[in-house]
Amino acid sequence: METKILNVDLGERSYPIHIGEDVTASIGSLLADRGIKPGTSLLIVTDRNVAALHLDRIVGLLGQAGYKVGTYIAEPGEATKSLAVLQDIIGTALDTGLDRNSVFIALGGGVIGDLCGFAAASYMRGVRFVQVPTTILAHDSSVGGKVAVNHPKAKNVIGAFYQPEIVIYDTKLLLTLPPRDVRSGLAEVVKHGLIWDEDFTSWCNENAGRLLSLDLEALGEALYFGCKVKAQVVSEDEKENGLRAILNLGHTLGHALEAVAGYGELTHGEAISIGMVGAARLAGKMGYPGDIHTVTKALMEKFQLPVVIDAAYSTDDIMSAMQHDKKFRDGKMVYIVPTAIGKVKIDSSVSADMVRAVVDELKGGE
Amino acid sequence: METKILNVDLGERSYPIHIGEDVTASIGSLLADRGIKPGTSLLIVTDRNVAALHLDRIVGLLGQAGYKVGTYIAEPGEATKSLAVLQDIIGTALDTGLDRNSVFIALGGGVIGDLCGFAAASYMRGVRFVQVPTTILAHDSSVGGKVAVNHPKAKNVIGAFYQPEIVIYDTKLLLTLPPRDVRSGLAEVVKHGLIWDEDFTSWCNENAGRLLSLDLEALGEALYFGCKVKAQVVSEDEKENGLRAILNLGHTLGHALEAVAGYGELTHGEAISIGMVGAARLAGKMGYPGDIHTVTKALMEKFQLPVVIDAAYSTDDIMSAMQHDKKFRDGKMVYIVPTAIGKVKIDSSVSADMVRAVVDELKGGE
Ligand SMILES: NC(=O)c1ccc[n+]([C@@H]2O[C@H](COP(=O)([O-])OP(=O)(O)OC[C@H]3O[C@@H](n4cnc5c(N)ncnc54)[C@H](O)[C@@H]3O)[C@@H](O)[C@H]2O)c1
Ligand SMILES: NC(=O)c1ccc[n+]([C@@H]2O[C@H](COP(=O)([O-])OP(=O)(O)OC[C@H]3O[C@@H](n4cnc5c(N)ncnc54)[C@H](O)[C@@H]3O)[C@@H](O)[C@H]2O)c1
Ligand SMILES: [Zn+2]
Ligand SMILES: [Zn+2]
Repeated sequence: METKILNVDLGERSYPIHIGEDVTASIGSLLADRGIKPGTSLLIVTDRNVAALHLDRIVGLLGQAGYKVGTYIAEPGEATKSLAVLQDIIGTALDTGLDRNSVFIALGGGVIGDLCGFAAASYMRGVRFVQVPTTILAHDSSVGGKVAVNHPKAKNVIGAFYQPEIVIYDTKLLLTLPPRDVRSGLAEVVKHGLIWDEDFTSWCNENAGRLLSLDLEALGEALYFGCKVKAQVVSEDEKENGLRAILNLGHTLGHALEAVAGYGELTHGEAISIGMVGAARLAGKMGYPGDIHTVTKALMEKFQLPVVIDAAYSTDDIMSAMQHDKKFRDGKMVYIVPTAIGKVKIDSSVSADMVRAVVDELKGGE
Repeated sequence: METKILNVDLGERSYPIHIGEDVTASIGSLLADRGIKPGTSLLIVTDRNVAALHLDRIVGLLGQAGYKVGTYIAEPGEATKSLAVLQDIIGTALDTGLDRNSVFIALGGGVIGDLCGFAAASYMRGVRFVQVPTTILAHDSSVGGKVAVNHPKAKNVIGAFYQPEIVIYDTKLLLTLPPRDVRSGLAEVVKHGLIWDEDFTSWCNENAGRLLSLDLEALGEALYFGCKVKAQVVSEDEKENGLRAILNLGHTLGHALEAVAGYGELTHGEAISIGMVGAARLAGKMGYPGDIHTVTKALMEKFQLPVVIDAAYSTDDIMSAMQHDKKFRDGKMVYIVPTAIGKVKIDSSVSADMVRAVVDELKGGE
């Protein structure tokens, strides 16, 4: 596949995303083209899984290109997105003599991207950073500039809006992904179709098999499209004041399910798959065409993603997890509702009772 | 004294500084004028010393003005500027239900301003904040938007550039300051004269007695001028790419002395007092007029600030602390050198040997 280049348009903070098979092979020249001169000190932040599979090659390539390369290897998993690990990364940055001209490189999935991005935003009040995403889900997290770590009491609540210099997205690195992370990441790809483009949604439907089997051509297309939708939305609303909320299709219920299941039980993609089916069902109740629900549900099933809520989870718990999300007011809540395939609206007065009915139906497995 | 209002000109991030006796009495309407509507949730971050003296009154005033007020009381001292305390503040913010529309209020000296400012910059990726400085030194820290916490290995190395909505600087709150903090803060006031304005330097010399005895009229003048110089420099160089370095007069040596003495032994103002005398002495060696040194030294003595280095500190340690500061290269270093009273230049090739000679002379107490 040819490399595809997408520009995220954010004025002087604009940056390119390079997507393609083996794009990391030219990582050195890509950095140089973005003004990161050979000789610059880099700190690669990654996790143990990714390090075992891909770190040596990237370190070798950057070394050959004349960069000074340090590494920080974190434990895999959401718990790594913490201030404690951030402090540890900054310690490594200091020990290896990184200064204001140095560059952080996030080599990993969304956990590493969010963590390393916030470390870069904070180190000496901000140094440059580069995203080298290694998961499918990271097509979502690497675009948009939201970086953060978690607080023990809430996810992503300590962070910044901070844009990378470049995103280098090598589809070949995805070949080592565990199948569950493949499916989970594809849920966000499909979401980008459902909120923005009916044709791309059909394309996803037709190409589900190729995507699940990691056909690099199909993956490149899908990531390109997913990044493009996200980039368009973000360009229009960098600081999340309005439009950007449409990216949360399936997330109100999805987040609640993740919390109630206990983090890690359901992957993020699995949770929002159920969430998107729920939103489609809600749309039906609100009078939008019934095929939104049938198409959405069939699509998720095609991607081998869950579409029902485990009956063991209490509806009250799920509702109160949504309440905690601060999205309720006077029995009404803000909800992203699909109005057709490829279209959604932000509805700020959805009845909580109607949402509860949807939750119960999803538990019934209808 | 009449309230003085100064505008810090930073495009859409511009903000006003209100300086005067009892300006906090109208804190509610000042907030409302800046678009912070009554009903908004506020979190006041302060330290135990300041809380004991001033917190109840401020909470009362804000409550009367219709705000929802939470408080976080930290331990006094530099150790409070840590990620651990930041995490604790964020926990309180979550517990009290602060959302993206809420406002953090820094009530305290530079420690609280830096800490609370970074908490505000990071909480939910950035909420508004307000500075209510309670030390003289905070005229420096509350202007310019540098916020940060410390890493165990280095000061101020985790932070952001983040501007407040307004600075409310009530000279009356300064009446409770311990004398050593008064003198220390005045060292930075005098520095702003030495780098920028000969007339103001003379004014400081003539009014040292009034300032040391906390005459509110004189204090208001001094803080206004100090903030004005800082604001002008910062407006021209928000992200510290060039000019802003002149604010570091006395700081290269000053920081080294703080480190070698052990933090807390010398206050920051005491350390930079010696640093400014050192810079003046260096200027003499470099051929600039000798009165720079005599005037600077006399001025510091008038403010009861130290002008010599304790002979117990090793010159080697001091030199290597400066080296650690990354300001050396090939026996040369960047130094802010006074070229006249009220004028400095950034000299990037000062000989390290000459600096060493100055350190030795300062230890001799000449
Ligand atoms: N910033 C944003 O806008 C945004 C958007 C969506 C999600 N996120 C965040 O992203 C995170 C989830 O991202 P994720 O699903 O990529 O998680 P992740 O980074 O934890 O990666 C998932 C797992 O895959 C492993 N892995 C990564 N790349 C691999 C590869 N190439 N081969 C084999 N194993 C590999 C990892 O070690 C990990 O165990 C969450 O923390 C979420 O909050 C952020
Ligand atoms: N952000 C910047 O641009 C900048 C510039 C200069 C200094 N700083 C930072 O400022 C800090 C030093 O500031 P500081 O000297 O104000 O320290 P501080 O905040 O620790 O205050 C000094 C002491 O005075 C007490 N105090 C404060 N107000 C009082 C009052 N009204 N009455 C009685 N006691 C009071 C405090 O409890 C503390 O013990 C350092 O951390 C330094 O890094 C930041
Ligand atoms: Zn998501
Ligand atoms: Zn200072």
